[in-house]
Amino acid sequence: MPAASITTVPVPLGDRAYDIFVGRDLLHEAGARIAALGARAAAIVTDAHVGPLYAETLAQSLKQQGLRAAIVTVPAGEATKSYASLETVCDAVLEAKIERGDLVVALGGGVVGDLAGFAAAVVRRGVRFVQVPTTLLSQVDSSVGGKTGINSRHGKNLVGAFHQPSLVLADTALLDTLPLREMRAGYAEVVKYGLIDDAAFFAWCEKNWQGVFAGGPERDEAVAQSCRAKAAVVVRDEREDGDRALLNLGHTFGHALERITRYESARLVHGEGVAIGLCLAFRFSASLGLCPEADAARVEAHLAATGLPTRLAQVSGGCGTVDELLDAMAQDKKVKGGALTFILARGIGKSFIAPGIAVDSVRAFLEKEINASRP
Amino acid sequence: MPAASITTVPVPLGDRAYDIFVGRDLLHEAGARIAALGARAAAIVTDAHVGPLYAETLAQSLKQQGLRAAIVTVPAGEATKSYASLETVCDAVLEAKIERGDLVVALGGGVVGDLAGFAAAVVRRGVRFVQVPTTLLSQVDSSVGGKTGINSRHGKNLVGAFHQPSLVLADTALLDTLPLREMRAGYAEVVKYGLIDDAAFFAWCEKNWQGVFAGGPERDEAVAQSCRAKAAVVVRDEREDGDRALLNLGHTFGHALERITRYESARLVHGEGVAIGLCLAFRFSASLGLCPEADAARVEAHLAATGLPTRLAQVSGGCGTVDELLDAMAQDKKVKGGALTFILARGIGKSFIAPGIAVDSVRAFLEKEINASRP
Ligand SMILES: NC(=O)c1ccc[n+]([C@@H]2O[C@H](COP(=O)([O-])OP(=O)(O)OC[C@H]3O[C@@H](n4cnc5c(N)ncnc54)[C@H](O)[C@@H]3O)[C@@H](O)[C@H]2O)c1
Ligand SMILES: NC(=O)c1ccc[n+]([C@@H]2O[C@H](COP(=O)([O-])OP(=O)(O)OC[C@H]3O[C@@H](n4cnc5c(N)ncnc54)[C@H](O)[C@@H]3O)[C@@H](O)[C@H]2O)c1
Ligand SMILES: [Zn+2]
Ligand SMILES: [Zn+2]
Repeated sequence: MPAASITTVPVPLGDRAYDIFVGRDLLHEAGARIAALGARAAAIVTDAHVGPLYAETLAQSLKQQGLRAAIVTVPAGEATKSYASLETVCDAVLEAKIERGDLVVALGGGVVGDLAGFAAAVVRRGVRFVQVPTTLLSQVDSSVGGKTGINSRHGKNLVGAFHQPSLVLADTALLDTLPLREMRAGYAEVVKYGLIDDAAFFAWCEKNWQGVFAGGPERDEAVAQSCRAKAAVVVRDEREDGDRALLNLGHTFGHALERITRYESARLVHGEGVAIGLCLAFRFSASLGLCPEADAARVEAHLAATGLPTRLAQVSGGCGTVDELLDAMAQDKKVKGGALTFILARGIGKSFIAPGIAVDSVRAFLEKEINASRP
Repeated sequence: MPAASITTVPVPLGDRAYDIFVGRDLLHEAGARIAALGARAAAIVTDAHVGPLYAETLAQSLKQQGLRAAIVTVPAGEATKSYASLETVCDAVLEAKIERGDLVVALGGGVVGDLAGFAAAVVRRGVRFVQVPTTLLSQVDSSVGGKTGINSRHGKNLVGAFHQPSLVLADTALLDTLPLREMRAGYAEVVKYGLIDDAAFFAWCEKNWQGVFAGGPERDEAVAQSCRAKAAVVVRDEREDGDRALLNLGHTFGHALERITRYESARLVHGEGVAIGLCLAFRFSASLGLCPEADAARVEAHLAATGLPTRLAQVSGGCGTVDELLDAMAQDKKVKGGALTFILARGIGKSFIAPGIAVDSVRAFLEKEINASRP
């Protein structure tokens, strides 16, 4: 019966067009969908948490369709997005005799997707790849859009490729084993899509978030709607020259917090940074008189209800000083003549790219935020 | 006066179109041509032989145009096309604060071009790059066409990207410092273009090769004509799905010899393998009754006149047994049902893709060649 509950989200990128399938238990029938792409072999790249849970099921499903399937397992965690892992994965893919018509399948969260997608982009100067995202974050965000890459000592995601997948299979049942904290982190990105340009979806989230977490049909709906939202932006601006930047709502502050907490996931994971960042972006917009205070309060109330952090004071180990925060932000954004570009909002669902925001006004805002959170 | 003797070869690849400039002393005016691309900074990647000779001149020329210029030097030699060097170069390019509008400039032979081009393809998911090829091989072959990459323990050039340069500056004066052996190696590729589909150019080579080696105007003409020939093939088949394969004339045998000599340049460099491979391809074609013996003899006579090897017996340290040669060939080509695809010729300038060549007939031919060369 799974067929009845599968949603297809097309990503119409010309000769790089592909479909995202969203639904429960897609993994069991993954082989048939992947075989339809016409490959004879697949290298499944996964991590040490996800592999033991799901890799064998996927490999069996591929083998039933007559495909050779090899499994390549990398350590779990952000540190795996490295040059060393790229070498490991590329060589393992070559070892598995993946030819130009064959496939790499990324089975895991954003770390595996970014790494395996990049390996697929460069092995034999490009083989096709399929995303089977296993975290909420990767289902609603990183598996869609074709950005792949690894981290350099100079910063995150600085080395990589635009390489669109040939297929995305978002099996929402896989999230049943995801730790609650990772579930929340991905949920911050779901909420983000509502905040960018879809007030109705934000209202839907307020009403239905418990179903999303519990794994009801609301989860599938939230994933599909998020994919639609991201796909629409990607189709408008595949290589991020223009309004794909809206997807960074909450991320200027969020990235600064990740940098300050040195990407230590024990202190802060990406989605938690985004949750705080979304609240800051709305409160900053309100403080500039752009957005009703009530909207900023509503954003915070909803994220807090799901258990996400919303305030700088909630960063474990501290969020640093205002100067440290501004420094960390300047690494992400170019500061031109004392001003930087932010994503701000005129209200829920009304975000926009705001160039020319004076560093001084950011400083004043952050001082207020940090003082407000002092005991 | 250099302007008078500069030839422009356009490579009309749609939105990836670019020009190849060929001429003496282009390096001194490189800054102006590169600045015209609109970048504010450039990272010059070079190797330990070429850097001391030419990097400062290039850097000064860029600085005179107001561009920041950093120099990144890697060791000379094929071993530099490695994952480790990729990391070194990418991180150095990031260290030089190369942003998306900026440039990587490859100043060196094919090794530097392939490595730096690949780094440019992946730093920040792609920055532009300029080729300043300094070997004959790179001027007539590797700098044109957008193939970039590194070697894996599973084989040569197995990891990389298609990334077209924004500009190629082939300064033929730079070849004045090239060792004769490298000059000859590159010359084998020049001859190859004539053999593929341009009998008149082959005849021109027979008459003018000494001028090419000596650095007369014939050198510029040979480089420009080779670039035109390669560009035409690349434009027809950018991603090597079809007749770009013709460029592999002589390379099936050549690659096998490189493999057998373990890519030890003391024993054999690529162009020497190609020279022997071209002769073998013509003699094999003749032995199959496809090509006049006289044409095969003419190919050998010309290559030998320039000092290139033409026979298996000339491989330093031996060319291996027939079985070893066949094994080495099978790693390059897929053997399907006891047959493989070769590039053969019906005569000089009349090459074609020949699928379905029985391994047995290759074996018989190689046995004859090896026996013939026994003392
Ligand atoms: N490419 C893009 O467009 C894009 C967009 C956003 C984020 N990202 C990247 O994504 C990465 C973060 O992705 P993530 O949040 O998925 O992190 P992740 O891949 O590290 O996964 C989080 C943790 O959950 C575990 N896990 C994954 N699926 C599981 C499951 N079904 N059951 C149990 N455990 C499971 C993982 O092993 C890991 O420990 C970052 O590197 C970020 O840069 C990329
Ligand atoms: N990308 C492609 O389409 C393509 C095509 C053919 C070959 N290649 C690659 O090209 C590489 C071979 O290129 P190559 O033959 O240029 O080798 P190379 O880059 O190693 O250069 C040969 C030697 O000459 C030195 N040198 C270079 N320029 C010099 C100069 N002007 N004066 C003095 N010394 C100089 C180098 O330091 C090196 O020691 C191989 O890795 C091959 O795979 C790529
Ligand atoms: Zn995010
Ligand atoms: Zn060659």
